[in-house]
Amino acid sequence: MSSSSNLQLTKDGELRHFLTPEGLDRLMLERILDTADSFVVVGNQEIKKVPLLRGRTVVNLFFENSTRTRSTFELAAKRLSADVLTLDIKTSATSKGESLLDTLQNLRAMHSDMFVVRHSDSGAAHFIAEQVTPNVAIINAGDGRHAHPTQAMLDMLTIRRHKGHFEPLSVAIVGDISHSRVARDQIHALKILGCKDIRLVGPNTLMPQGIENMGVSTHNNMDSGISGTDVIIMLRLQTERMASAFLPSAGEYFRLYGLTTARLAQAKPDAIVMHPGPINRGIEIESAVADGPQSMILNQVGYGIALRMAVMSMAMSGQMQQRQAQANQTSSLSGEKKA
Amino acid sequence: MSSSSNLQLTKDGELRHFLTPEGLDRLMLERILDTADSFVVVGNQEIKKVPLLRGRTVVNLFFENSTRTRSTFELAAKRLSADVLTLDIKTSATSKGESLLDTLQNLRAMHSDMFVVRHSDSGAAHFIAEQVTPNVAIINAGDGRHAHPTQAMLDMLTIRRHKGHFEPLSVAIVGDISHSRVARDQIHALKILGCKDIRLVGPNTLMPQGIENMGVSTHNNMDSGISGTDVIIMLRLQTERMASAFLPSAGEYFRLYGLTTARLAQAKPDAIVMHPGPINRGIEIESAVADGPQSMILNQVGYGIALRMAVMSMAMSGQMQQRQAQANQTSSLSGEKKA
Amino acid sequence: MSSSSNLQLTKDGELRHFLTPEGLDRLMLERILDTADSFVVVGNQEIKKVPLLRGRTVVNLFFENSTRTRSTFELAAKRLSADVLTLDIKTSATSKGESLLDTLQNLRAMHSDMFVVRHSDSGAAHFIAEQVTPNVAIINAGDGRHAHPTQAMLDMLTIRRHKGHFEPLSVAIVGDISHSRVARDQIHALKILGCKDIRLVGPNTLMPQGIENMGVSTHNNMDSGISGTDVIIMLRLQTERMASAFLPSAGEYFRLYGLTTARLAQAKPDAIVMHPGPINRGIEIESAVADGPQSMILNQVGYGIALRMAVMSMAMSGQMQQRQAQANQTSSLSGEKKA
Repeated sequence: MSSSSNLQLTKDGELRHFLTPEGLDRLMLERILDTADSFVVVGNQEIKKVPLLRGRTVVNLFFENSTRTRSTFELAAKRLSADVLTLDIKTSATSKGESLLDTLQNLRAMHSDMFVVRHSDSGAAHFIAEQVTPNVAIINAGDGRHAHPTQAMLDMLTIRRHKGHFEPLSVAIVGDISHSRVARDQIHALKILGCKDIRLVGPNTLMPQGIENMGVSTHNNMDSGISGTDVIIMLRLQTERMASAFLPSAGEYFRLYGLTTARLAQAKPDAIVMHPGPINRGIEIESAVADGPQSMILNQVGYGIALRMAVMSMAMSGQMQQRQAQANQTSSLSGEKKA
Repeated sequence: MSSSSNLQLTKDGELRHFLTPEGLDRLMLERILDTADSFVVVGNQEIKKVPLLRGRTVVNLFFENSTRTRSTFELAAKRLSADVLTLDIKTSATSKGESLLDTLQNLRAMHSDMFVVRHSDSGAAHFIAEQVTPNVAIINAGDGRHAHPTQAMLDMLTIRRHKGHFEPLSVAIVGDISHSRVARDQIHALKILGCKDIRLVGPNTLMPQGIENMGVSTHNNMDSGISGTDVIIMLRLQTERMASAFLPSAGEYFRLYGLTTARLAQAKPDAIVMHPGPINRGIEIESAVADGPQSMILNQVGYGIALRMAVMSMAMSGQMQQRQAQANQTSSLSGEKKA
Repeated sequence: MSSSSNLQLTKDGELRHFLTPEGLDRLMLERILDTADSFVVVGNQEIKKVPLLRGRTVVNLFFENSTRTRSTFELAAKRLSADVLTLDIKTSATSKGESLLDTLQNLRAMHSDMFVVRHSDSGAAHFIAEQVTPNVAIINAGDGRHAHPTQAMLDMLTIRRHKGHFEPLSVAIVGDISHSRVARDQIHALKILGCKDIRLVGPNTLMPQGIENMGVSTHNNMDSGISGTDVIIMLRLQTERMASAFLPSAGEYFRLYGLTTARLAQAKPDAIVMHPGPINRGIEIESAVADGPQSMILNQVGYGIALRMAVMSMAMSGQMQQRQAQANQTSSLSGEKKA
């Protein structure tokens, strides 16, 4: 069991932080997906409001701006009936040493129950979880190129709701694998959930060296890469990288790796297409595909709220059990003294 | 029945969007005013909190900054117990074509129930209501020079609460008619509610060509224009237009069209004075009038919250009925298949 | 009884604004501390959510930016179940004359129940309380060099919870007394609560002339100043003043007035160390002291939420009683007319 796993779980094996799927076992990932399922009310496509975090304080700590991710966490927290405080903290104003720690200790001292952390540095959420434990649940909302675990898990939720079991599936992840913060977490989650055929598709310049060691296959040719797949996960292309030597022009990229209707025909007829959004129409995906019947793109958004509600409520519950256990231990010790 | 009217109403004639009073009938406007009345608790001048939008998500979509209007909608939504998400979206970041549409579809997919839309382009709210229907209620919080219907309707609420029936009233609208986003809606609403004598007062340069076709009279002379009126609605002067050729100097404008105590004496002794705020004291209105016994300016603010609560709760209710009707139709169709 | 006192209290002597401890009597300050105590739940270090301000609207009026103070008031309001509207109003956009007044009257007309006011001008909260009375409770969240009463009172709460009665205590306030907005309020509160030995410690250039008239002693030597004290309140050094002639270099300041472990030994062995935060480590305080067993710095943060909940709920309660009394008086007058 890795240190991440220990950090994320209570002594009783309950979730108390959610930093990365790495190190969690299949049962835990399935519990997360089951819990998320319970927040997706099929009829009417509504998500019901529940009082699970009533009276709890969730602080959105965004060291890096991301309106879309912040909005989904804010809505998830409000639908769990939490009090939400949103702070935009520029990294420049704090250093990762003492002063950031003082800021966090200060927020903890305000009796915050949960930090939702977004940071441009890899490992920031992990660092915070280690330093401010044991009483604040840390949810990783994306850190550097390291992880974006709620995005990866909402993708798993989408796959399971539309494809069922993971074992028999062929899943392609297409695009800029190197710079994606979510691809790593997707690979971990897919493997833990039993997926046997994971294919990474993209140009060599965007493929991390030695990635095959994670038990995946790599493909430079898009057509053969997605051939016969059940699921195609498109990554968002950071168009600001276009200027760099890593990437050909937008037109050239679309010609080689853009998902078109013609190309989609290489996959299974009932294959689903996923994308974290916002999509770059005509660069990594054709509009006819993005808006077509196989696209899960808008479904993913709704599932994303449900998935975030799931990990937030589970981590809060784990924290509460941990606090209770500590309180019992303390009173038991006091009892011994008195005796 | 205009297309706006169809767009704003469910098949059963219930409000499902609120974009403009134009095309709504007198009964509907009176229902809006009645509902608003129910939110104005006379005793103690308080507005009570009600659970009508409990569990519903209202997104404030402000493509154009307006702290005052945003605050009133935010308070109205919270007093209806809704969860509120406020997004400041700069028009520059989106185009009115695909990418704006993607943003809106994304927000809809988060199971948002209502968008409160403020935009500098005329027709933006109408455009959004057409594109994201049928499941999100659109409330127009002001778009271009086109419309600012909640402001117009809170003015109607003010008039009805203090003057009763509209038929016998003489109402003057004074100022920059051309550039006002509310004057058009005020004229529509007054006519629908039965007002027979609507007078537009201002310099020719600020009077839209052919406006008499709307069934109003125009007046360049302030004294004769407001003579014998029951209601004087002052428009806010955009002082940034002072530099242009449209407007004389502030001093000259005040001399010709400023509402002073002396000039107010031309109106009926019990005439009421209205202004959307914020007022430019000494430019379009004298402080003695703004703060005097005939001024409704602060009353309008409170009525504005109540009016916004009214259209928000009515549009939400219309949307819910529509969703229910669609769900029934779907299950009925399924039933037929099974039979 | 000073005018501040009258302004802060209803006719029945209940709190209706909280502007400064000055002019309030010992009984009132003790009631504030008792109420705050009730919001500090010792077990588990949690603060429970209570419905005392349910349906009430609290407007955070921050004319001056202060993320930390704003966050504590926002959390306090939400834990009291209030609806919170936060407005960042730049002083430049308003003048203290008419237009600020119009903004405030407008907010009042939205049926706001409470303004939390932060302003760079001394007396701003007092000015607003006089102008917008009687129906909006004003809580002073810091104005100019005048006052920061909730900070002063959370310090009193910290002292009382850890040291009990004030009479026998020796309390040192160390640092830039002249420019501190909280030192004055601390002195007032300590004296009202019965503290006999209040010592101000700092360089002469940072000591207000004639301050001894407040019944305190002044000390330029840190070691003798804190000798034998029970409580050491460190003020935050505004490092931007370092450039001025008032202050020596940071190193020199720390050498003369920095609180080190060695220096802390001059105080009583069980002396507590307080600081409003954020701390400048190595400038006014050594990390070993800030993080040591005698430090109350993080406790103060949690007590700060409880203290703010206390004054907010008490002032709201006072306002409600006042409104009720006025309503009774009005209906009683109507009754006389009818008779």
